[in-house]
Amino acid sequence: MLIGAVEAGGTKFVCGIGNEKGEVLDRVSFPTEQPEKTLAQVIDYFKDKPIEALGIGSFGPIDIDRASPTYGSVTTTPKPGWANYPVLPELRKAIGVPIGWDTDVNAAALGEATWGAARGLDSCMYYTIGTGVGVGVFAEGKLVHGMVHPEGGHVLTRRHPEDTYGGKCPYHGDCLEGMAAGPAIEARWGVKGHELAADHPAWEMEAFYIGQAISSAVLLLSPKRIILGGGVMHQMHLFPLVREQVRNNLKGYVVAASLESGIDEYIVPPGLGDNAGLCGSIALGLQALREAR
Amino acid sequence: MLIGAVEAGGTKFVCGIGNEKGEVLDRVSFPTEQPEKTLAQVIDYFKDKPIEALGIGSFGPIDIDRASPTYGSVTTTPKPGWANYPVLPELRKAIGVPIGWDTDVNAAALGEATWGAARGLDSCMYYTIGTGVGVGVFAEGKLVHGMVHPEGGHVLTRRHPEDTYGGKCPYHGDCLEGMAAGPAIEARWGVKGHELAADHPAWEMEAFYIGQAISSAVLLLSPKRIILGGGVMHQMHLFPLVREQVRNNLKGYVVAASLESGIDEYIVPPGLGDNAGLCGSIALGLQALREAR
Repeated sequence: MLIGAVEAGGTKFVCGIGNEKGEVLDRVSFPTEQPEKTLAQVIDYFKDKPIEALGIGSFGPIDIDRASPTYGSVTTTPKPGWANYPVLPELRKAIGVPIGWDTDVNAAALGEATWGAARGLDSCMYYTIGTGVGVGVFAEGKLVHGMVHPEGGHVLTRRHPEDTYGGKCPYHGDCLEGMAAGPAIEARWGVKGHELAADHPAWEMEAFYIGQAISSAVLLLSPKRIILGGGVMHQMHLFPLVREQVRNNLKGYVVAASLESGIDEYIVPPGLGDNAGLCGSIALGLQALREAR
Repeated sequence: MLIGAVEAGGTKFVCGIGNEKGEVLDRVSFPTEQPEKTLAQVIDYFKDKPIEALGIGSFGPIDIDRASPTYGSVTTTPKPGWANYPVLPELRKAIGVPIGWDTDVNAAALGEATWGAARGLDSCMYYTIGTGVGVGVFAEGKLVHGMVHPEGGHVLTRRHPEDTYGGKCPYHGDCLEGMAAGPAIEARWGVKGHELAADHPAWEMEAFYIGQAISSAVLLLSPKRIILGGGVMHQMHLFPLVREQVRNNLKGYVVAASLESGIDEYIVPPGLGDNAGLCGSIALGLQALREAR
């Protein structure tokens, strides 16, 4: 069975084909330009592919409320041409298979729960920490949408006592994204994160913010696994620092082996590596196919 | 149809009988003593009542993992005799109907989503702000359990710039409960909350902490309604202050009418008033009955 997958990013689109095992069989990518041009490339890629369903994990914010008249649109984005653009309706006109539609991070959470680092679990959270910070939430076997959809990259955090940087978020200044995304690291230290040595104090500060957000997520949602992806988390030495912050913050209050001896298997990198996005979209496509049957 | 309900609190137990409309037909309460004595009173209350199911919303932390060998126990509590006590197994021995079991705040969230302030919605959060702070989470039509269960009363918050109080939580010091529960108000200002005038600066500070926690919850979970109960929230003048803090924190980033013109109907008191706990337990009992059929 072949399932189509679209990883719709603000910078690039990745299209691919996979199967029900989450194996990616083909992929292409192209830069995100005006929506008409970019979606024509998507349609062109899939037009001769015998897919049974399609999944789209999209940059956002997007409308994922099926009862909404603007379901399937990107909503507010500074990306030229994309604000209020009806992405899903346009693709439906051209591609006649069931189509799953969700945020890129919700897709990644579903992919990780299906084939990756949270395989077999009925809850997990997926954080991407890169140019921005995004959070996907899978709870009690379902992706969480709610009123709009999770935007957990913008939670408020306490400032690190030695941090004088004002914060990069145009909305909130020093929220999680404003303090911990890649551009904040670069603005604070004057160089990109990957140029900073593993023992640079930048990383303890970075872990301070990420660990704080995760601690609150553990308290509020109690996910069975937390997956940290995105460019910043390619710095693998961050993982032990983040785990230590989480333990320090929780102070033994939540009693679970996953927060003590099992913490190395609790806060983890994506199991699907660079395929996390595409596999997530395949999982969305499979979910749409199940619902259609 | 008659459903039994138990609101198992650390200070008192309330037992009652209700129906499938959420109407409470009878109630009794007694102080929480040693578990053997208290559960004998529960069993005695229900022994001649023709209930078809029973729901228990319990103080915690409790084990709500059905696959766990200690499912149905209170886990860690300083309450004498209750730590690791098998509450649900003991009641099951004596009461031969399906029994639903969850945290008191999850029960209240389910009750509010069934008959109360979030009636008909598939997501809501229920905060109780009283002697402590507890949070129940209902998302995508299900109560959230996850690894343990939500303990959102202990999320970390930024300190109010004029607040010099150290915090009351024995685990975290200045977490939400440590700064905003009733005992923190009393410790900070020297009198109980209900003795402070509505224009006392205590309330702006109180709303600062509550509003901060709610802002993060909106970002992380995007619930369709947020219900604030508990003794502290009997101060109705707190509601507009909390709503203002939430709007100030989010700064228009999450675009939803519920956060703008609709905020008075978004952050609300319990629709079930003093019956929120018992009705929640009735809803748990009904859920257990549906599952058993």
